[in-house]
Amino acid sequence: MPSQEMRQCSVTAPLGDDVFSEDPTVNELQRQTADMFRKEDALWLPSGTMANLCAIQAHCHERASEIIVGKESHLTLWEGGNLSTIAAVHPRQIMEDPFGKLDLEEVRNVWRSDNDDHFAKTSLVCIENSHNMMGGSVLDKKYIDELGKLASELSIKVHIDGARIFNASVSLNIPVGELCQSADSVSICFAKGLGAPMGSIIVGSKEFIRLARRARKRMGGGTRQVGVVAAMGKYALDNNIERLALDHQRAKYMAKTLYEAGFYQPQEGDDDYGVLVGYGYSKGGRLFRACTHLDVTEDEVRHVTETLLSVARS
Amino acid sequence: MPSQEMRQCSVTAPLGDDVFSEDPTVNELQRQTADMFRKEDALWLPSGTMANLCAIQAHCHERASEIIVGKESHLTLWEGGNLSTIAAVHPRQIMEDPFGKLDLEEVRNVWRSDNDDHFAKTSLVCIENSHNMMGGSVLDKKYIDELGKLASELSIKVHIDGARIFNASVSLNIPVGELCQSADSVSICFAKGLGAPMGSIIVGSKEFIRLARRARKRMGGGTRQVGVVAAMGKYALDNNIERLALDHQRAKYMAKTLYEAGFYQPQEGDDDYGVLVGYGYSKGGRLFRACTHLDVTEDEVRHVTETLLSVARS
Amino acid sequence: MPSQEMRQCSVTAPLGDDVFSEDPTVNELQRQTADMFRKEDALWLPSGTMANLCAIQAHCHERASEIIVGKESHLTLWEGGNLSTIAAVHPRQIMEDPFGKLDLEEVRNVWRSDNDDHFAKTSLVCIENSHNMMGGSVLDKKYIDELGKLASELSIKVHIDGARIFNASVSLNIPVGELCQSADSVSICFAKGLGAPMGSIIVGSKEFIRLARRARKRMGGGTRQVGVVAAMGKYALDNNIERLALDHQRAKYMAKTLYEAGFYQPQEGDDDYGVLVGYGYSKGGRLFRACTHLDVTEDEVRHVTETLLSVARS
Amino acid sequence: MPSQEMRQCSVTAPLGDDVFSEDPTVNELQRQTADMFRKEDALWLPSGTMANLCAIQAHCHERASEIIVGKESHLTLWEGGNLSTIAAVHPRQIMEDPFGKLDLEEVRNVWRSDNDDHFAKTSLVCIENSHNMMGGSVLDKKYIDELGKLASELSIKVHIDGARIFNASVSLNIPVGELCQSADSVSICFAKGLGAPMGSIIVGSKEFIRLARRARKRMGGGTRQVGVVAAMGKYALDNNIERLALDHQRAKYMAKTLYEAGFYQPQEGDDDYGVLVGYGYSKGGRLFRACTHLDVTEDEVRHVTETLLSVARS
Repeated sequence: MPSQEMRQCSVTAPLGDDVFSEDPTVNELQRQTADMFRKEDALWLPSGTMANLCAIQAHCHERASEIIVGKESHLTLWEGGNLSTIAAVHPRQIMEDPFGKLDLEEVRNVWRSDNDDHFAKTSLVCIENSHNMMGGSVLDKKYIDELGKLASELSIKVHIDGARIFNASVSLNIPVGELCQSADSVSICFAKGLGAPMGSIIVGSKEFIRLARRARKRMGGGTRQVGVVAAMGKYALDNNIERLALDHQRAKYMAKTLYEAGFYQPQEGDDDYGVLVGYGYSKGGRLFRACTHLDVTEDEVRHVTETLLSVARS
Repeated sequence: MPSQEMRQCSVTAPLGDDVFSEDPTVNELQRQTADMFRKEDALWLPSGTMANLCAIQAHCHERASEIIVGKESHLTLWEGGNLSTIAAVHPRQIMEDPFGKLDLEEVRNVWRSDNDDHFAKTSLVCIENSHNMMGGSVLDKKYIDELGKLASELSIKVHIDGARIFNASVSLNIPVGELCQSADSVSICFAKGLGAPMGSIIVGSKEFIRLARRARKRMGGGTRQVGVVAAMGKYALDNNIERLALDHQRAKYMAKTLYEAGFYQPQEGDDDYGVLVGYGYSKGGRLFRACTHLDVTEDEVRHVTETLLSVARS
Repeated sequence: MPSQEMRQCSVTAPLGDDVFSEDPTVNELQRQTADMFRKEDALWLPSGTMANLCAIQAHCHERASEIIVGKESHLTLWEGGNLSTIAAVHPRQIMEDPFGKLDLEEVRNVWRSDNDDHFAKTSLVCIENSHNMMGGSVLDKKYIDELGKLASELSIKVHIDGARIFNASVSLNIPVGELCQSADSVSICFAKGLGAPMGSIIVGSKEFIRLARRARKRMGGGTRQVGVVAAMGKYALDNNIERLALDHQRAKYMAKTLYEAGFYQPQEGDDDYGVLVGYGYSKGGRLFRACTHLDVTEDEVRHVTETLLSVARS
Repeated sequence: MPSQEMRQCSVTAPLGDDVFSEDPTVNELQRQTADMFRKEDALWLPSGTMANLCAIQAHCHERASEIIVGKESHLTLWEGGNLSTIAAVHPRQIMEDPFGKLDLEEVRNVWRSDNDDHFAKTSLVCIENSHNMMGGSVLDKKYIDELGKLASELSIKVHIDGARIFNASVSLNIPVGELCQSADSVSICFAKGLGAPMGSIIVGSKEFIRLARRARKRMGGGTRQVGVVAAMGKYALDNNIERLALDHQRAKYMAKTLYEAGFYQPQEGDDDYGVLVGYGYSKGGRLFRACTHLDVTEDEVRHVTETLLSVARS
């Protein structure tokens, strides 16, 4: 939930019509984010799902493209199948390793050029950092750089679904601009760990952003004086990144405590103990996912952990 | 541009996660709008373009549908071809009369069932009220009811692109619920005459809204604590509708004065006189379009009118 | 219906796997047709509908393209809305004049570049020659050349739906290569006036054909030893073009006789007189369409004409 | 390659216009195939790729559907990504076991209803029998029946890509009608082991075939007197099924001999030895695929086998 301080930013932000790129608050946020990621340009979008979808439409500007994407990625699992049903892009799904990495040799093997009519042409490979369904695993710069090198060799692009890229950056203690240097584009999200009510940004080359902006308009993601919301995104960028280290510390405490107690597989009915958890869908076994964020205090983390332990014991 | 008073609403609005339908401000605005239009349910969306696009995806839930739509409609001209390029719906475009009406006999003639494999099946007919490219022409209840009757006979639905439906309602002095009685769905827009920074709503049956909500998610139009913006939409609904009569009065004054002066076809270069106008694209001749709204005072309308007259005279 | 002589060709034609471009009969037919039309390359396809659809996918290789097309064209009316529902291309439909021509000034007006995000980018203009729904009207070389010049100026391509292009060519007494000189691509059909059982060809540049071939494969139009059918297409090309003049002569006789008798609007129930006619769908009034072809003898044309006259008199 | 006897069938087959379901040869072949598979109806299509694509469009008649499909299936790998790029269906790809089976528990786990907006709704599960990329593995009736039971429980359909279903049937010594009893639809192919030059058929319920026929038309797969080709399909059905046992016997001989010699991984350059092989693409290791069929004699199989052995020894 957005804080009062964040919400107050909205009232005084200078506004204009963003459909015509004339909202100063949006423009400033886009510039700031592009600089942060050391990319040429940036574009505001209402949500992370639309950010990814417009990025993919821009990279796959040629008809009948294929992308390589993780079988357990957010793109594959949680975005309504929109790669296929909206963007008409064929996803070639390969299994991530337990740390969210696509095997580079498999990427090379499943890549297709357009010299055989049986195949859609590969245009893009997508990774997710940190990787939601792989327990928030973080992909480090070395891996991303190696993937970037391979992609360059195969003449394809690299997109990072970076809904939680600041978590990765803080966890690795490396600036996002350096971490994402080998990616052609990154989507970021203001509405998760950063605490803003909505909004995403994609960064990349000028031509990439031009095509993504056109996609945004035909999707209905172009809005008017959206500086009222972008102002809160800017607040998040300025104030809520460093504190992610606290969330990580608490998550690690919780994970370590539960693990040491032999706890790893909760059963249905946990809700009865006042612990609200989201269940993962994609695994045979029953996962649960707990998420520390700026609305969760240290005391609450401790309370949840202890409750889970007492459930496990009974 | 949103007024300060409107923007202030945002700060105190109660919030929740609208992806899970738990934002009380959004829920209240949806309920209020559904009631106003006497429809079962309503859905918030970031823009009018997405509102129309999700409505059409919901009505055309069957693969390979065709819709009947005006050749000069906003849907055909200004939404990036998204009927085809995003929604995979075939638009059968027919020419509106100069008052924005689709000829009922032609609607009947171009309608197709699915009993001949040569044809896409007609699922929907779309009208625009008031009609932007037809000079803001208003479709009256009698016409809409007749279209509704025909549609019912042909087993197709009626959607109203109602980005300016309140202008029509105020101009006809008839409540929107009554005006749109024969339509299956209506999209409305908070960002034009109503003065909110962004946002739209569609209204219709429960099942229609269920499908549109699913479309919204896969398009990336689902957002989190979007009550921060919906609060301003609610302010617009409560405060900015009746005053549309003023805009109409001023527009009529301007049109009448220019017409009496024989003025109807401006040339390029008008901008030099400090008058910012948008040119229409779709006609052979060069149209210009002026739009009165809540940020345009009576004095400004008079100033623009007189400036145009003096240009015409010179 | 294919003649026995034509069918006999099938048995002896040399064959190979056309998915790998190794069917000599297909290759020869493609070469012959490309030469005839003075284009670089050619591609066999199972039907005229697929020929058009693959041509359009090739020309509109960029995502979110728009094409300009006649409101009464075969593409708009008779191909299941596939421009939108399969190819995700937005059709901008404009009204043909009564002779099947798109007004050049209107083409220029509705053309859109990609410098405004509100618009899909125009990639192509399509004409139909001869024009089926406009009574078989023929577009002459002068018009096609003017359209080609305009298209070149607007940086768009010209596609001719030439399902009946040989009728146009014979009627104008001008070779197809000359008639279609200004077009970037032409689709032709072996299954109508030419009397083959199935099959179409598109002609155009090498790169155009490369992309169309890829489209054909993913549509499922790539087949194996299809020389068995292409052989009949080749027979048609070699034997059935010049005789189209006879069909035209008979059609003119019929049209003239009926017209002079004041006959222009048949009623339902004509079938009772042993005359099988197809009704046109797209006009307010009830059209009927009669078609002379190689299975219709001079005597039969006379018989039909007289039958219609006697119906009209009674 | 089609035999002379088969090609001769084409000349005398009775013909009609199949766009209007009036080709007696096609109608008879469709009836014969439907009966053979014990399904209500059948539809002729030019290729196996189009057969699968129209089947999937028919099953996924609702917008934004998802299908469950093997990661190494022909549908995923060899059909140009058309599930996504043409049919706008999202493929949820899961890994087959080494015998081409989808794990039933995983099918259950990845299935999605439409009660959560994050997910596309699962409409269909597809299997391939025999499975090309899994070395021609055969799925037996017991497995198909279990899958059918699960699908029924999940309210989804089962489609079999049966391009080589007669190989499975002959190998299992069980009629196709019995083998495919639990499937809602099957596509078969006349152009592979059955030796016809082109053509496929899908079988299923009357409503399924009605929708598939509509898809075929808008794809451009509807053709005229296609009895000229269907006649050869009928010949194949009547004459070339039982002899598949010979192909299997030869394939087993070859595999066994090579395996016993420790031969399993050829290197590039084999072509120099006059052995034409197709390389598999989808595995990390280098596969080769040899295929016995009606144009390959016993002597040739022996020759190839021995050549490979001598290569392996050197």
